[in-house]
Amino acid sequence: MKHKKIIYQPIGILHSPHKEVEGAPIQPSGAKGIKGEIELFEEYQDGLKDLDGFSHIIILYDFHKSKDYSLQIKPFLDDQLHGVFATRAPKRPNSIGLSVLKLNRIKENKLYVENVDILDGTPLLDIKPYASRFDVVEEEKIGWLSKNIEESSAKKSDTRFK
Amino acid sequence: MKHKKIIYQPIGILHSPHKEVEGAPIQPSGAKGIKGEIELFEEYQDGLKDLDGFSHIIILYDFHKSKDYSLQIKPFLDDQLHGVFATRAPKRPNSIGLSVLKLNRIKENKLYVENVDILDGTPLLDIKPYASRFDVVEEEKIGWLSKNIEESSAKKSDTRFK
Repeated sequence: MKHKKIIYQPIGILHSPHKEVEGAPIQPSGAKGIKGEIELFEEYQDGLKDLDGFSHIIILYDFHKSKDYSLQIKPFLDDQLHGVFATRAPKRPNSIGLSVLKLNRIKENKLYVENVDILDGTPLLDIKPYASRFDVVEEEKIGWLSKNIEESSAKKSDTRFK
Repeated sequence: MKHKKIIYQPIGILHSPHKEVEGAPIQPSGAKGIKGEIELFEEYQDGLKDLDGFSHIIILYDFHKSKDYSLQIKPFLDDQLHGVFATRAPKRPNSIGLSVLKLNRIKENKLYVENVDILDGTPLLDIKPYASRFDVVEEEKIGWLSKNIEESSAKKSDTRFK
């Protein structure tokens, strides 16, 4: 189990105005209104049937610019060291990113999305419908983030995760 | 890009009372109170620092029992065909699962969690802190799910995604 590799293949590519790590928003909440396009490879287009009924989608993607990781890091939202699993930092043991995006329109194999915090050229792994019934919890504690989360909308990336 | 493989490695393993696909809850919302344990491989334990401040986590894992997929399927919650990307079905082009779990306690490399809808023995890919600021949207449309979602809590899996 430990050394078994899990192999996936990109199913599409993300197009966004964020061409560089530096200056990109660090979460969709800081990317409000920023538009992008998901290009699903044509062979998967039939899998989009009825997705246009959903206003939001969850996408999973590979942080393709993140080549290594540390188990403890200073994330953008704090100057203290935290475990990588207590952060959303892109440099993680398996560099999988997750964003909730607004879905404006689907045309053939293109999804027009909003609140895009993702780098241009990012390989897409999965699209799932967002449903608060599945994805929202009633009460929550958010640990170290609670003192910093208000700032995250305005915060942009710097070079630390390049 | 199209044929480039993306390779990940399990960082741990999920222990749950669900030993078979058949009979397992289909979402955490249908697994309320069901307890499980995440065993993170020891070499990643330092990455858990400060995660215990969060009441909920998002975990990503590989649906290791799903070996193939169709682009259009009848999900558990409907008798109509939908595109696989408009469903949470485990058989998908990249068989990555996502669940939001309640985190009760961390002890060394073990995470004691609740609302577990995942099969015993599932390989873990990532743990992220859950924060409504990042993961919750204000208004939503949920397409075909809207007529069926009330039933999902009670619904159990059958053999169709075996």
